[in-house]
Amino acid sequence: MNDVKAIVLAPDSFKESMTAKQACAAMERGIRRVNPGVRCFHVPMADGGEGTTQSIVDATGGTLYPLQVQGPLGREVEAYYGISGDGKTGVLEMASASGIGLIHESERNPLLTTTYGTGQLIQAALDHGIDNLLIGIGGSATNDGGAGMLQALGGRLLDEAGLPLGPGGGELHKLARIDLSGLDPRIGKVKIRVACDVTNPLCGPEGASHVFGPQKGATPEAAAMLDGNLRHYADVIRRELGQDIADVPGAGAAGGLGAGLMVFLNGKLEKGIELVARLTGLEEKVKMADMVWTGEGSIDGQTRFGKTPAGVAKVAAKHHKPVIAFAGRIGEGIDGLYEQGIGAVFGILSGACDLQAALRQGEDNLERAAENVMRLIMLQRQV
Amino acid sequence: MNDVKAIVLAPDSFKESMTAKQACAAMERGIRRVNPGVRCFHVPMADGGEGTTQSIVDATGGTLYPLQVQGPLGREVEAYYGISGDGKTGVLEMASASGIGLIHESERNPLLTTTYGTGQLIQAALDHGIDNLLIGIGGSATNDGGAGMLQALGGRLLDEAGLPLGPGGGELHKLARIDLSGLDPRIGKVKIRVACDVTNPLCGPEGASHVFGPQKGATPEAAAMLDGNLRHYADVIRRELGQDIADVPGAGAAGGLGAGLMVFLNGKLEKGIELVARLTGLEEKVKMADMVWTGEGSIDGQTRFGKTPAGVAKVAAKHHKPVIAFAGRIGEGIDGLYEQGIGAVFGILSGACDLQAALRQGEDNLERAAENVMRLIMLQRQV
Repeated sequence: MNDVKAIVLAPDSFKESMTAKQACAAMERGIRRVNPGVRCFHVPMADGGEGTTQSIVDATGGTLYPLQVQGPLGREVEAYYGISGDGKTGVLEMASASGIGLIHESERNPLLTTTYGTGQLIQAALDHGIDNLLIGIGGSATNDGGAGMLQALGGRLLDEAGLPLGPGGGELHKLARIDLSGLDPRIGKVKIRVACDVTNPLCGPEGASHVFGPQKGATPEAAAMLDGNLRHYADVIRRELGQDIADVPGAGAAGGLGAGLMVFLNGKLEKGIELVARLTGLEEKVKMADMVWTGEGSIDGQTRFGKTPAGVAKVAAKHHKPVIAFAGRIGEGIDGLYEQGIGAVFGILSGACDLQAALRQGEDNLERAAENVMRLIMLQRQV
Repeated sequence: MNDVKAIVLAPDSFKESMTAKQACAAMERGIRRVNPGVRCFHVPMADGGEGTTQSIVDATGGTLYPLQVQGPLGREVEAYYGISGDGKTGVLEMASASGIGLIHESERNPLLTTTYGTGQLIQAALDHGIDNLLIGIGGSATNDGGAGMLQALGGRLLDEAGLPLGPGGGELHKLARIDLSGLDPRIGKVKIRVACDVTNPLCGPEGASHVFGPQKGATPEAAAMLDGNLRHYADVIRRELGQDIADVPGAGAAGGLGAGLMVFLNGKLEKGIELVARLTGLEEKVKMADMVWTGEGSIDGQTRFGKTPAGVAKVAAKHHKPVIAFAGRIGEGIDGLYEQGIGAVFGILSGACDLQAALRQGEDNLERAAENVMRLIMLQRQV
C-alpha cells in the first residue's frame, strides 16, 4: 500500500440511496480530490438479490429492459431484465416479476401465487439471442415449485383429465402428467445459472413450504398442504422425467423455483456473489489493482454470509490485496468481517440525522469518506 | 507512518457526549484492539472554552473543586475551578460563575449582570497557593469591564460620594475613584494568563458593548449606554492608574473583563488553545510520537479559527507529525483544515439516528472509528 496506483471500486448498491454504479462514481470523486493519478476500476457489484440486474448491466455497459408481466396474483406488473453489453448474457430477478414486494401483505397466499411472470421474463431475455442467463431468485412470494414459470415457457402441467393446472402451489396435488414438448427450444441452448444462497431441500421440515411458507402468508395448515403438494410434484417429476429433485440442496429455494429451474431448465445453482463476481470480471481487475474498496448500505454481522463485501473480500484475499469497506450503517458483530479479510470498515455519515436525510446525502457522504480514507493512505508519504 | 509505535491522543471534549479524557480512553481502546503494542499519550485538550478546566485537571492529574458563588444576577450558583496535579496552577472558566448559560433568556441584561462570582473563583484558587492561574473568559453574560471581579478580590470602585458602585455595567458611569489598597496581595505573586480568542477593543463600534452586548440582552440604547460607561471606566483607569486600556486588543473580551484582568491583575491574554497546549505539555508528547489523533464533537469550517483540532495540528506540523481528526458531526467547509495540517477527518457515527442517541453512543462510536483507522494504518504491513 506504500504506493497506491490502482484501486478496484466494487461496492454493492446502497439501497434506497444509490446504485452500485453511483457508489463507484462517488468513491472515485473522493479519491481524485486527493490523488488524481490513481487508476480506478469500477466494478458495480451485487449478491444476486435486489439490484443485481442493474449492477450487471452497469458493469458490462448493457441495457435494462422493462417488461409488463403477470404478477404473483396475475395482475400485470412492470418487471425488468437486463442484457449485458456484449449481448451474450441475460440477467433477471424473479422478485421483479413474482416478488413478495409486489402484493399487499393481506394478499399473501402461496396457495395462489405463481412464478408465471418469471417465466415471461426468461422468454423475453431469450428473444435477445443470449448464450447465458443469470437468474436471481430471492424475495419470492411463491411456493409453486416453478410450475408457473414452466407454463409461461410452454411446458404443460396436466391433471388426470389432461387439463392444465391453474396457478399457485395449491394446484400441484392435481399434477398427473408433465409435457415438455412445447417448451421453448432455446432453453436447451442457453447456460442458465441461478443465484441462490440457500441449501434447503424441496420438501420436509427443512423444505420450502415449512421454512419459507409462513413468511409468504401460509398458515400452518396451508404450509403442510403445500409441502405435500411439492412432495407429489417431486414424485411426478421422478416418474415422468426420471429426475429425483426432492432432496437436492437449493431445490427448496424461492418456493421450489430452485427445483423447477434445475429440472426443467437445467439451471445450475451458485452463490449469487460468486456468479456476479464472475460476470463482472472482478478477479481480473483485482489482480491489476493495489487495493480493493467495497461497501453496502448496511454492514453488520450478517454481511459475512454471502453479502457483497464478504464476497469481494474473498476474491481480494486470494490475491493478497487489502480491502476497505464503507457503509451507511454499521451494525453489531462486524469483527467476523475483519477475519474474512476486510481490513477496515468506515461509516460515511456526516452527523446525526434521520434515515431519509442519510439516504439523500449518501453520495456526498460516501465521496467525503472515500476522500478521507485516501488522505490517510497518502499520509504515510509525508512521514 | 510505516511503523506506528506511539500516538498522541489529543482530542477536545465531545460536548454533551464525553470529556476529552473519556475520548482519549475510547481512542486507545480502539487502537489496542488492533495493535496492543502502540504507546498512547493521553493529552485531553480544550481551547479555553467550556471543558477547559476539566481537561487540564485530567491532563495534569489535578482536582476539580465546586464552589458556591454569586451568579451573574447575584443568585448563588455552583461554579467550579481546578488545581493542577502539581498544585502550582489554577484553572477556571468565567462562564461557570458569570456565564450567559446561568440566567434565563428573559433575564439577560448587561446593565445588571456582574463578574463578581468570577472574582470569588479567582480568590478560591489563590487559597491553594498557586503560582499560575489560567482563566477562560468565553461565554460571559456580563458587560461590567470586570468591575465585579475586582470588587470580589478586594478592590474598591467608588463614586463621587465615596460609596462603592453596585453591580453591573450600568453603574460604571458613576465611577470616580479606584482604590486597590485592599486588593488581595496574592494577586501580585501569581502569573495570570487569560485564554482569549478575540481582539476587540474595550470601546467603540468594535468594542464589547456594541459587538457582544446585543447577544447578552442589551437593547441598542443599552448598548450605547454601556459603551459610554466603559469609555468613562477607561478614562478613570487612565487617570487613576496611568494605564490606557481602551484600545488594547482583547480589552473588549467578555464584556470588558479582558480589560479588568489586564489592568488590575496584570493578566496576559493568549489564544486559549495555545495556553492549554502549553499547560498540558502537548508539544513534548508530540515530539515523542509518530502521529497525532485529535477530535471534537463537531468539526466544520469554523474549526480552523482557534479550535482544538486546528491548534493541535499546528503543534504537530511544527514537528512534521501527521494528524487525524475524529468528529461526531462533520460540517461544511472542512477543506481549510486539510491545508492546516489535518491529514484526514473521520465521522464516528454508526448510522442514522437522532442527536440524543448519537451523544449516548459517542464513546462506542469513537472506539470503533479509532479501531478502523488503526486497521487501515496497519494494512500497509500486509502488502
